[in-house]
Amino acid sequence: MCDTCGCNVTPAADQHAVDVLKGLLDANDHEALHNREHFERHKVLAINLMSSPGAGKTALLEATIEALGSELSIAVVEGDLETENDAERIRSKGVPAIQISTGSACHLDAHMVHHALHDLELDDVDVVFIENVGNLVCPASFDLGQHINVALLSTPEGDDKPAKYPVMFRAADLVLITKSDLLEVLGDFDPDAAERYLRQIANPAPLYQVSARSGDGMGAWLDWIRQEVRSRE
Amino acid sequence: MCDTCGCNVTPAADQHAVDVLKGLLDANDHEALHNREHFERHKVLAINLMSSPGAGKTALLEATIEALGSELSIAVVEGDLETENDAERIRSKGVPAIQISTGSACHLDAHMVHHALHDLELDDVDVVFIENVGNLVCPASFDLGQHINVALLSTPEGDDKPAKYPVMFRAADLVLITKSDLLEVLGDFDPDAAERYLRQIANPAPLYQVSARSGDGMGAWLDWIRQEVRSRE
Repeated sequence: MCDTCGCNVTPAADQHAVDVLKGLLDANDHEALHNREHFERHKVLAINLMSSPGAGKTALLEATIEALGSELSIAVVEGDLETENDAERIRSKGVPAIQISTGSACHLDAHMVHHALHDLELDDVDVVFIENVGNLVCPASFDLGQHINVALLSTPEGDDKPAKYPVMFRAADLVLITKSDLLEVLGDFDPDAAERYLRQIANPAPLYQVSARSGDGMGAWLDWIRQEVRSRE
Repeated sequence: MCDTCGCNVTPAADQHAVDVLKGLLDANDHEALHNREHFERHKVLAINLMSSPGAGKTALLEATIEALGSELSIAVVEGDLETENDAERIRSKGVPAIQISTGSACHLDAHMVHHALHDLELDDVDVVFIENVGNLVCPASFDLGQHINVALLSTPEGDDKPAKYPVMFRAADLVLITKSDLLEVLGDFDPDAAERYLRQIANPAPLYQVSARSGDGMGAWLDWIRQEVRSRE
């Protein structure tokens, strides 16, 4: 019975469902811990990239591999509902990439990453990038065993996204404002406002502006990766 | 026990969880039917707008209200995790808007829309737009009681999104390629490729290119709305 209008409907979520979902998250956390131990045993830094669809995660990885490929050994785990397109783009840069096809699932979970790692030789790898499913909500709730979360916010999406998707942006250790080459064309994305929204949700993470297309701002991002790798050696 | 490497981990999803989630979807479908009957009793056309974050749903609604406000009576239900920003933008156009704040939920469900409808007087309304949470995955699985699904694909996201997010684009009765004013600047979004990807997932829905900013292409979208309203009178 609906508690407002008295009509004969039941709420879509009940306590039993909440308990089941909590159980799933607990199981996921257990498996994420296993993945993290696996990365650490191999002295691998694991970075989880999260963003909306089409915010430029794969383009960022392509530019990153081109710039760092000669000094760091990189591998990639790609998450998409369908297609092997992104893994193929990465492989064409000479880097191993495992594609996870989630079917209808809106995020990667630790179990999927665990299985992908069976196909990835980590002995000589320095950094594994995990490109999550394009989704600014669900991926933030599932630990994969990564060390660091990087959230991408592309300029066409608008500077208000940290306020509107606080769960994702609160989870970010670094925020990249991508497609910065479009800032002038768009004219309505204010990087200072994006930073203000991020601070309002109590996240002190750094924000960098980058354009994978023009190369602008890539230096700070590459230095940040180098620094994170060194700090874990 | 992991069936591949034999380590002590359990899969994140099990049959019990699948059953619970199926029960949630069944309950949602029941409530969606209730909403649809409510719309039909009031002779209201309900249109569900779905897209990635920042694809331009609210901007499209603002331009639509400006163009059609004198000939059709419009109301809006806004879905966001947080903030009342979008509802305020709509209200400033003189149209009633109810904001649903989903908290951490990645989609609207029929129960949330049902409650929002308690606050919306539908007697003289012709069209209710439901602006779903920005997410190209989850909203497609939850019937809200709408008559029509419109999926927005913004040009900066890339023309491959129908292939990579097939569940969403298969559910679309109409696809709007938004931010068409950026086509030339971007240079890498091929509208024919977007259509080809849509046909490959067996969706015969029309695609229109629109720019809420420049007004280009709005005519076809507005005519489509007029036609849908008339066909239900």
